[in-house]
Amino acid sequence: MEANEKDILRGGQFLVKETNCEDVFTPEDFSEEQTMMKESVMEFNDREIIPHKARFEAKDYALTEDVMRKAGDMGFLSVAVPEAYGGMGMGFVSTVLTCDYISSGTGSFSTAFGAHTGIGTMPITLYGTEEQKQKYVPKLASGEWFGAYCLTEPGAGSDANSGKTTAELSADGKSYKINGQKMWISNAGFCSLMIVFARIEDDKNITGFIVEYDSANPNGIVLGEEEHKLGIRASSTRQVFFNDTVVPAENMLAGRGEGFKIAMNALNVGRIKLAAACLDSQRRILSTAVNYANERKQFKTPIANFGAIKTKLAEMAASAYAGESATYRAAKNIEDRIALREAAGNSHQEAELKGVEEYAIECSILKVAVSEDVQNAADEGIQIFGGMGFSEETPMESAWRDARIARIYEGTNEINRMLAVGMLVKKAMKGHVDLLGPAQAVQEELMGIPSFDTPDYSELFSEEKEMIKKLKKTFLMVAGGAVQKFGPKLEDHQQLLIAAADILIEIYMAESAILRTEKNVKRTSEAEQSAQIAMAKLYLYHAVDIVEEKGKESIISFAEGDEQRMMLMGLKRFTKYANYPDIVDLRIEIAEKVKAENKYCF
Amino acid sequence: MEANEKDILRGGQFLVKETNCEDVFTPEDFSEEQTMMKESVMEFNDREIIPHKARFEAKDYALTEDVMRKAGDMGFLSVAVPEAYGGMGMGFVSTVLTCDYISSGTGSFSTAFGAHTGIGTMPITLYGTEEQKQKYVPKLASGEWFGAYCLTEPGAGSDANSGKTTAELSADGKSYKINGQKMWISNAGFCSLMIVFARIEDDKNITGFIVEYDSANPNGIVLGEEEHKLGIRASSTRQVFFNDTVVPAENMLAGRGEGFKIAMNALNVGRIKLAAACLDSQRRILSTAVNYANERKQFKTPIANFGAIKTKLAEMAASAYAGESATYRAAKNIEDRIALREAAGNSHQEAELKGVEEYAIECSILKVAVSEDVQNAADEGIQIFGGMGFSEETPMESAWRDARIARIYEGTNEINRMLAVGMLVKKAMKGHVDLLGPAQAVQEELMGIPSFDTPDYSELFSEEKEMIKKLKKTFLMVAGGAVQKFGPKLEDHQQLLIAAADILIEIYMAESAILRTEKNVKRTSEAEQSAQIAMAKLYLYHAVDIVEEKGKESIISFAEGDEQRMMLMGLKRFTKYANYPDIVDLRIEIAEKVKAENKYCF
Repeated sequence: MEANEKDILRGGQFLVKETNCEDVFTPEDFSEEQTMMKESVMEFNDREIIPHKARFEAKDYALTEDVMRKAGDMGFLSVAVPEAYGGMGMGFVSTVLTCDYISSGTGSFSTAFGAHTGIGTMPITLYGTEEQKQKYVPKLASGEWFGAYCLTEPGAGSDANSGKTTAELSADGKSYKINGQKMWISNAGFCSLMIVFARIEDDKNITGFIVEYDSANPNGIVLGEEEHKLGIRASSTRQVFFNDTVVPAENMLAGRGEGFKIAMNALNVGRIKLAAACLDSQRRILSTAVNYANERKQFKTPIANFGAIKTKLAEMAASAYAGESATYRAAKNIEDRIALREAAGNSHQEAELKGVEEYAIECSILKVAVSEDVQNAADEGIQIFGGMGFSEETPMESAWRDARIARIYEGTNEINRMLAVGMLVKKAMKGHVDLLGPAQAVQEELMGIPSFDTPDYSELFSEEKEMIKKLKKTFLMVAGGAVQKFGPKLEDHQQLLIAAADILIEIYMAESAILRTEKNVKRTSEAEQSAQIAMAKLYLYHAVDIVEEKGKESIISFAEGDEQRMMLMGLKRFTKYANYPDIVDLRIEIAEKVKAENKYCF
Repeated sequence: MEANEKDILRGGQFLVKETNCEDVFTPEDFSEEQTMMKESVMEFNDREIIPHKARFEAKDYALTEDVMRKAGDMGFLSVAVPEAYGGMGMGFVSTVLTCDYISSGTGSFSTAFGAHTGIGTMPITLYGTEEQKQKYVPKLASGEWFGAYCLTEPGAGSDANSGKTTAELSADGKSYKINGQKMWISNAGFCSLMIVFARIEDDKNITGFIVEYDSANPNGIVLGEEEHKLGIRASSTRQVFFNDTVVPAENMLAGRGEGFKIAMNALNVGRIKLAAACLDSQRRILSTAVNYANERKQFKTPIANFGAIKTKLAEMAASAYAGESATYRAAKNIEDRIALREAAGNSHQEAELKGVEEYAIECSILKVAVSEDVQNAADEGIQIFGGMGFSEETPMESAWRDARIARIYEGTNEINRMLAVGMLVKKAMKGHVDLLGPAQAVQEELMGIPSFDTPDYSELFSEEKEMIKKLKKTFLMVAGGAVQKFGPKLEDHQQLLIAAADILIEIYMAESAILRTEKNVKRTSEAEQSAQIAMAKLYLYHAVDIVEEKGKESIISFAEGDEQRMMLMGLKRFTKYANYPDIVDLRIEIAEKVKAENKYCF
């Protein structure tokens, strides 16, 4: 098995290995089946969600449930579910693209969909026994039942394992009695099944349970009122109280004390799906904004002709493009790894579990990057609309409000940043990713005499790919230096972890945009991919700025004197272009393309 | 007069002259009268606004009107109004601080207050005839009447002079008939007076009118429904339709065709007041956030102890501190210039008009910087509150929504950025600010051999003040280069103007924070000002990063080859510290202070 695995990049390995553009999957690689799925989902979104936008904003929870039911009828809830349990058994890329294209109508539905198909269903498909899967998964896959995920408590948010909810085994050993209070439970108002995490006795770790819920026979379960929230207004979000709720012992998920692991792994899947769920929102925001900018005239010309607006359109397009590139790249890595595991004899369940877990770093990276990109896109969308952007009559303000939750749930972006770097360091220690060797090589390079040759960068992306290599060296220099200085205490230095994470994120996103474009240029031509080339270059340019900023801040904080000087010189070298791209021109080129097509068109 | 004027920095001159810390006014310089005013206003805010937060969020427009009435009873609407017209006739600093400390309860009241006292009243005090002032200003100052400002139209937003509303003189020459549609009119629902801009015949520029409004006798004025908005929910915002509305000819403001000038000058005052109105919101957001972070425990410790949270607290504090420093610095400059003009024989009216107009650049800078800072503060506030931040039960989400409008109204931040640089270039052309000389000196410095001596930077802020000088050189290099390249066509290069504005803004804000702190250190001690020193250094560090980023982008876009290389080398020199401050430590120091005091405490 190990031999096969070596063909696919391991999670986190993007940082130390060069990836060939032929080896990345891009949205342009969608199969016929995937394209059909995408079109089917888009058509559903256009028909069932978009026209009812105002009702979602008016907190019509019943509508959310109704559309979820219709999504179930269409099979969209079952994309990721194996055929043995009533699902379509499609691959991970299809799962991700369904999430992507079904989510742009409103964050309310997007959250309901994500909570149900992800954290509401996946814990059973990933950790359930055969009996549990036979009993529950078909109902969840069809939309006969909806699922909710009860992890967070008033005193247990980021510190998810600290929950106070208890599960007590009955004297006859046949059931558990659950007591406690959960909060921020998506889909609570219309679910029939809850994944509940509770602590047995004084266990170090919590345990997962499958809890059925029937409002006619509530079994001690009391729902709080609907929470009034900044956004995702028609997503049902309630507290859930468990009062001596009796759960059959056979409804325990995985083993006793394995709840925290389940919770974390469910979140890995949740994170890449959440990133995907932000992508079509970004596209739609841009399309709506450029449409407005083409229509709205000030100073006797459409505002789309002004540089101030073009900048926004171009930056919005480039970040959406990078987000797509990275999300589908990771999705396919996960799909391939699952297939590889299955080929090597793992059960589908185990293969899927390990496949996603392998790319937990990428899942965190994507969650952070794309949730922030969609927030920025909506923010610029409001600004393009001007006063109208502030009105509930135009779709920008709800997009902005809805986007805000994505930076909080499924682990705050701060937690995910620290996790991404923390997991990478752990992988290095386990030998899954060799960071030490490359880090030492960078150290040596720093002490050596730099070459002053200017390489031939005439080939497309040759300088950009060299720059990506240098950014990777920067990460190794910074993270390596921090590990050397603080050792295991590094986790107390959150400012450093977060700065390192920002570097890591930018590398992954920028590299993905470049590789996608390079692959497509080979299939078509530079002329046809001209705007995409501009977007990849623009994204990278900003990435370099961020890496420089975060690298500098970090180096100054942990290195002093000669070491600091040496590392700052290295940083300067690693972030220097031989030929700086003119991002003012790049933005104009991208904006002109988007203006001409009057939509996001990549 | 000119001789006297030279003692005070002219508007925009901060860029080419060094300011002594003794010459800046700081919040610590508040007189006894100003301090009493501040306390009185804070007490009002705590009593009349904060406890009713939920009612404002529930769109209780009547409450807004009621609190405005009470503010009138307290005299708060009359602070800036001369005693001759029933006002308190206090100075500009008092006007600004009233706006500051009355505005943090809710953006709904803040907007009503700002619209009434600023753009609703000031056009009359600044441009009205004696008769107009006698007739209207006392009513506005007392809160018997409320004012609204009718400039924007569906087709005329940023392009304010393009409005289609008409004013037609009657055959007998005694009145004008106004027809047209205005939108986004704050206070429309409860005003008795409107400043209305309309076009007479085919005039190039619009004309201002004072229009009385009495719902019992509407005179052709029809109000639209309340707009439903993202934020400032209880601020009355409506369309206003004028149908043959008859206005006495003597109600014309200033002369025919002078409306655009009135509109722009009213906005200058509006902009610095808007900046002020964002300051106490920032303080309150930080205080509320640190209080929560001290209370909220995760992983067995208050979250305020985590580096991820400390970063946010420190950055929020530093930006609020810089915002205060710059706003009061500019406010006092304006106050002093008004006094100087009066001493030189100008009427108060003319003196005030010219005094504010002089600092239009600073007003635009402040509007942009502080409105973005308060948005960021609220954004981080939500993140610190985590899931609770997304709930309408906590004050973060409304702060975030309310802050959003400040980046749009009183000229979008994009317009204000371009204005700031545009006005500066005009001032240079008029010879009011000598940019050319200093720009040439920078050019020569670029071509010369740089000194490699490391100066003695042991004295407090010596390196920081040198850095400010270098940032100013950067602006001159970038803006000078752009002017040389594009001449009057520069205004078509909005990306460049905006990048240059970002540099300008950072210089003014960072310098203000440093000068304030330096002044206070001289009065107290470094030890007492330790956190303030850290904030000034932290703010400057980021300013340098931004200047480098925006400078680089600009240089690459307009310079090529050797010129580009020379300027990029200059940029590097101008943004390099001899001793880089460790911002990780600075943030910790600031955060520890804020944590210990459990509030914004500067």
